[in-house]
Amino acid sequence: MCNLRLILQYDGSDFFGYELQPGKRTIRGELEKALKKIYGCLIKVHSSSRTDAKVHALGQVISFKPPFEIPLECLPSALNSVLPEDIRVLRAEKAEKRKKVFDAKAKTYEYLIFNGEVMPPHLRRFVWHVKPKLDLSAMRRSAKVLVGRHDFSSFCAAGGDDKNFVRTIYKIMIRKKPIRIWGLEKVPVISLIFVGDGFLYKMVRNMVGTLWEVGLGKKSVSDVKKILQAKDRRLAGRTAPAQGLCLIRVK
Amino acid sequence: MCNLRLILQYDGSDFFGYELQPGKRTIRGELEKALKKIYGCLIKVHSSSRTDAKVHALGQVISFKPPFEIPLECLPSALNSVLPEDIRVLRAEKAEKRKKVFDAKAKTYEYLIFNGEVMPPHLRRFVWHVKPKLDLSAMRRSAKVLVGRHDFSSFCAAGGDDKNFVRTIYKIMIRKKPIRIWGLEKVPVISLIFVGDGFLYKMVRNMVGTLWEVGLGKKSVSDVKKILQAKDRRLAGRTAPAQGLCLIRVK
Repeated sequence: MCNLRLILQYDGSDFFGYELQPGKRTIRGELEKALKKIYGCLIKVHSSSRTDAKVHALGQVISFKPPFEIPLECLPSALNSVLPEDIRVLRAEKAEKRKKVFDAKAKTYEYLIFNGEVMPPHLRRFVWHVKPKLDLSAMRRSAKVLVGRHDFSSFCAAGGDDKNFVRTIYKIMIRKKPIRIWGLEKVPVISLIFVGDGFLYKMVRNMVGTLWEVGLGKKSVSDVKKILQAKDRRLAGRTAPAQGLCLIRVK
Repeated sequence: MCNLRLILQYDGSDFFGYELQPGKRTIRGELEKALKKIYGCLIKVHSSSRTDAKVHALGQVISFKPPFEIPLECLPSALNSVLPEDIRVLRAEKAEKRKKVFDAKAKTYEYLIFNGEVMPPHLRRFVWHVKPKLDLSAMRRSAKVLVGRHDFSSFCAAGGDDKNFVRTIYKIMIRKKPIRIWGLEKVPVISLIFVGDGFLYKMVRNMVGTLWEVGLGKKSVSDVKKILQAKDRRLAGRTAPAQGLCLIRVK
């Protein structure tokens, strides 16, 4: 039987993250519960991107080995009928390899900052609220320092299981992305998009925290250079809150 | 002391509606708690638009009589510091009249429908999920029947305290409004905007339910005419779910 891959979206607000944790509501836990309802037996799922508590996903990819065949086109609606509303299966695909599930070649994360006075309550679960106006061009200049192949120890939080701290960031894009749900007026949101071959534990949120300090004028481009070179976590900025982060794509 | 008016936004998902209910979390309850913290005494608030459980607001207006003066420009941030995150005060204004709080001259409501296969989990608290493709032009033709001064008994739910069922709808606009929070792709949302001098209990949601039946091809423009003329609630479509509705503006 061929391994299958599921492309998932979730609102991470009410989850304790992706990975199983006893007695806690997790993405993987809900997925395995749903697969058990459909296939009738315990199925382990695998992901190369284990998102933290409150982190969202637009294009999470998980894989599993099905015990028997269900037509691929029926699987998303079958799973969605038993999954909670805050996780949705967009589509199911055959995975190429049998054993090794996947090596991600590129991952894209997006981080949203609401940069205004009063946080729109409808966006509060998806953005970080930063009141002082951020200097986007300073943030963009500093982001360039981070792009490339580097040892990112300075941006890696304790608690991860990383041993090799070298990663390649292909691109960081910082731009205004006004968002509107209700009414006509759009609210001022800043989007930071990170594309890389992989990210260390809390690395995106630690980079956002440092770029935020740059945006506030508390750190300069050369400070960011020094932080990167120092390979010392204590020098980087704070970890930006989880709810602003979303896993957009895994290739 | 002059009456004050507050312009509010809220995510209604976790509220049992606007009006006080013993032992339940309500918009008015949270507001009065916050005002008590700021002013030190119980203050009653008034609104001409008492939204139902799960209904949202972008421009709710409430008024109250303050026991002493706090500079208007300080009031929103003082209140926001003690209010829960799902209610925000946008601004405070002086109300013109002393006694009668306000007679709304026009109210605008918006209703959002996600018209696609898999509901994006980030939007689930703000839209009604309708899978079959809706016929917008048929819905627009039917909406024209409802515009004007009519007895809307057919669209009024039991349980309201309305005695006069005549209202004037100035405008109904139905259009595509693609929404995007994460990523680049926008999701297919349909917006229905209703502007009128007032709306009966659940009237907007009952109109949306009827227009939905039209969009599905189950009812025609002439059916909608008959329903309106019959003044009989049993003829109209289902009540559309609360989470799709938002009070946009009160004039």
